Amino acid sequence: MEGSSTPSPSAAELRELLGTLTDLGNAAAVLGWDRETMMPPEGASYRGEVLATLEQLAHSRLADPRIAELTAALAAEAHPDTIDAAIARVVARDHERAVRIPLELTAEIERASAAAIPAWAAARESDDFAAFRPHLERQVELRRQLAACFPEAAHPYDALLQPYEPGATTAAIRSVFGRLREGLVPLAREIAERPEPEPLPGGLAEAGQRTLALEVAHSFGFDERSWRLDDSRHPFSQSAGPHDQRVTARWDEADLGGLFAVMHEVGHSLYEEGVDPELARTTLGSGVSMGIHESQSRLWENQVGRSRAFWSYWLGRAAELLPPLQGIGLEDFLRRSNIVRPSLIRVEADEVTYALHVILRFEIEVALIEGTLAVADLPEAWAQLMQELLGVTVPDDRSGCLQDVHWAFGEFGYFPTYAIGNIVSAQLWRALRRAQPDVDAAIARGDCEPVRDWLREHVHRFGRRLDPPELLLQATGEKLDPTPLLEDLRAKYSELYGLA
Amino acid sequence: MEGSSTPSPSAAELRELLGTLTDLGNAAAVLGWDRETMMPPEGASYRGEVLATLEQLAHSRLADPRIAELTAALAAEAHPDTIDAAIARVVARDHERAVRIPLELTAEIERASAAAIPAWAAARESDDFAAFRPHLERQVELRRQLAACFPEAAHPYDALLQPYEPGATTAAIRSVFGRLREGLVPLAREIAERPEPEPLPGGLAEAGQRTLALEVAHSFGFDERSWRLDDSRHPFSQSAGPHDQRVTARWDEADLGGLFAVMHEVGHSLYEEGVDPELARTTLGSGVSMGIHESQSRLWENQVGRSRAFWSYWLGRAAELLPPLQGIGLEDFLRRSNIVRPSLIRVEADEVTYALHVILRFEIEVALIEGTLAVADLPEAWAQLMQELLGVTVPDDRSGCLQDVHWAFGEFGYFPTYAIGNIVSAQLWRALRRAQPDVDAAIARGDCEPVRDWLREHVHRFGRRLDPPELLLQATGEKLDPTPLLEDLRAKYSELYGLA
Repeated sequence: MEGSSTPSPSAAELRELLGTLTDLGNAAAVLGWDRETMMPPEGASYRGEVLATLEQLAHSRLADPRIAELTAALAAEAHPDTIDAAIARVVARDHERAVRIPLELTAEIERASAAAIPAWAAARESDDFAAFRPHLERQVELRRQLAACFPEAAHPYDALLQPYEPGATTAAIRSVFGRLREGLVPLAREIAERPEPEPLPGGLAEAGQRTLALEVAHSFGFDERSWRLDDSRHPFSQSAGPHDQRVTARWDEADLGGLFAVMHEVGHSLYEEGVDPELARTTLGSGVSMGIHESQSRLWENQVGRSRAFWSYWLGRAAELLPPLQGIGLEDFLRRSNIVRPSLIRVEADEVTYALHVILRFEIEVALIEGTLAVADLPEAWAQLMQELLGVTVPDDRSGCLQDVHWAFGEFGYFPTYAIGNIVSAQLWRALRRAQPDVDAAIARGDCEPVRDWLREHVHRFGRRLDPPELLLQATGEKLDPTPLLEDLRAKYSELYGLA
Repeated sequence: MEGSSTPSPSAAELRELLGTLTDLGNAAAVLGWDRETMMPPEGASYRGEVLATLEQLAHSRLADPRIAELTAALAAEAHPDTIDAAIARVVARDHERAVRIPLELTAEIERASAAAIPAWAAARESDDFAAFRPHLERQVELRRQLAACFPEAAHPYDALLQPYEPGATTAAIRSVFGRLREGLVPLAREIAERPEPEPLPGGLAEAGQRTLALEVAHSFGFDERSWRLDDSRHPFSQSAGPHDQRVTARWDEADLGGLFAVMHEVGHSLYEEGVDPELARTTLGSGVSMGIHESQSRLWENQVGRSRAFWSYWLGRAAELLPPLQGIGLEDFLRRSNIVRPSLIRVEADEVTYALHVILRFEIEVALIEGTLAVADLPEAWAQLMQELLGVTVPDDRSGCLQDVHWAFGEFGYFPTYAIGNIVSAQLWRALRRAQPDVDAAIARGDCEPVRDWLREHVHRFGRRLDPPELLLQATGEKLDPTPLLEDLRAKYSELYGLA
């Protein structure tokens, strides 16, 4: 039935509106990508105005009362299993959120962020938390006001989670993160007691790394007809619409971090590129949440890209392109490219300790929004949690609570999705291996198609059609569960580090 | 007074609307530039949809009846010499044009163009005018319908000229082009009777040409903080807003065409970058017409870039970067880089014969729109005019009436602006030299600041605030007049070719 019948007038009108909304979003995507990769620096000020205009045009369309009428009409007429039914449900929710938040509050958050971002950069530079404190207090206050627009939420932080992770609750995350913490803290301690492997040799030329990264990316699904790779200050990926995926990289000749970041970003882009074309221009044609997105990037970076099977194929080619790697055996390479050590900085953390940095931020965010932690007490709370979770002493706020830009942007509710992504990646990986028992052998032949095909079939193609809990249940038969991640990490590092 | 008083509510509302319109245009500019330089090829189809959406959003705003009310209110309250008065006048005219043309006609022109463009490409490829003929007949018919939306025009072609050259009339162009033709035809014949200089040697490496072009562009005003240079299939320039100028180049190691094209495109961008910042986000903050724009690109390419003064400074550097130029003296270089010969293809024509190609197209367009020439008779009319104007025999339609894409796009009224640009460039150059008698000496020192400063003061800063005739009168004291161009060309080529 689906797609073959003529749309009703209200369905057609809604599709037209959603097409415009999608196009405005993708126009902004190109402008955002261009700003980070191509734009002459003096263009920044005006580019901000253009992006604000596109955002405002999109918001006014999404908040139009006509959307509520059209989605209600569509919900009444669409068969529950159709794309139209999903559109009616998801767009009605987007509309509801857009109208619940007063325009004045959105504008105030933008003004507060515009002031907070340079203040944060200066405060981090001079290690001066007191200078950032009033800005952070203002952002917390504004986010509490935003949460108050959704009084039906069981916890005010739930309201902040929704735009990043639809369906997530503070209570469920608290429970899952509690179990994750119980597994990770002892694992990280046990590994830290073992001798630290020597790092990989430096002098890994940028040109060789780029060639290697492109060859690996091609084996994942990167294709010059629909993708491009550029340099930027921070690696990111951006979809500009169907068949237009932009990935960026940053290179450091001291290690292979740039290569792993490309695998990560290609994972995000494969998700966007794999959405069912039937969802194009409906606003449902992109990834459903930050957590599911991160599960895709992490799966390609960690479960595939840091595996024995993967490097049994790629190490020879890597050594051809990067001569300092010559003579390093596979076991040695795996140990030296999988060093786990507690550290201060989240973005430099390894795959075992990373989620502990995230749990710390989640606990602090919830306490700030609940009002059980005052901003003035943040540095102390940070230091105490770093000690508890990672056994690390924080020497200054610059490498403590001032290290991330997120709070200057007022982004509360985003951090937990990073660890949700880690958890989901392990759940998906287990389901994938059940369905494709020969996947390691394929990866060891340089063939990643079975991975890509399974992910497309069970994750990518749905876009925003299924909410994360439903998607996860359908793909794995499970709810969000840290057990596979904990078991896989323990197995991998027991082998690499010879744990008891 | 200007800028110091608080805007009235209607002025503020209009500025808000015009800001949105400007931003939509500049967003489309980035997307268009990206399509030609960066976009993965498979992204083309969806990019077309995004650009159509931005265009439609802009059109619906410009055609909003509220614009007529607001511009009328502003016209009534603004002092005649203010920016607000100019905004009221120009925007009212833009609005009037937007509402006069029925949406169905615009859509029909878009459909006809979408069909005509690939048909033209195939017809040119196979030299098959008959295959393109029905498409061209349709485009002519649609343009006549468009002209009929402006029954007050003295000539239907006048209505087609306006979007490219506000204030231009068929009668005035006919008169000016008649005098231009009378001067150029004998000049081109006299030059053709002289021995043809040997062309410059080939083997001019792309890397050296690019370095030279960037150094020259810097001396014109190019600055990496606000500009960038990329490669594309055809050179073009695109402003993405204040301090964001994009220039593209194409390189051919056989000649210096790529260098001259960069000078040309930088001339366009200097105009956009030189507009008074007070006009930003008013829709008046860009070049006023295609003719005035072309006067800027031609002035930098021809009056500056092909001059003795310019090469007396740059030839040494060029020979350093491009070794095949070593040992060529200045006089020899000037003769060999200024070869004038009648030819078949407009885009390959020299500065003397170029305008004759344009005059041919103008005469044919007017006759097609008047209905005095049938599309079926176009190849014959083309061949006859090529013989009359250039003394050239057209061997086939591929190198005749099928050579340009413009008519497939339905662009009638655009071609004459190329020759208007040539004419105006010579008028401005004469006025500039009257005001700055030492300009040749400055250029011969590699200093182009006097040229840039004069153009900014007398042309650039006005944006769309003055219509072309008013701008030209204010800058030069003259109406559109081909005499300076004819005199300068005769003087230059008499010297180079030793004419009687």
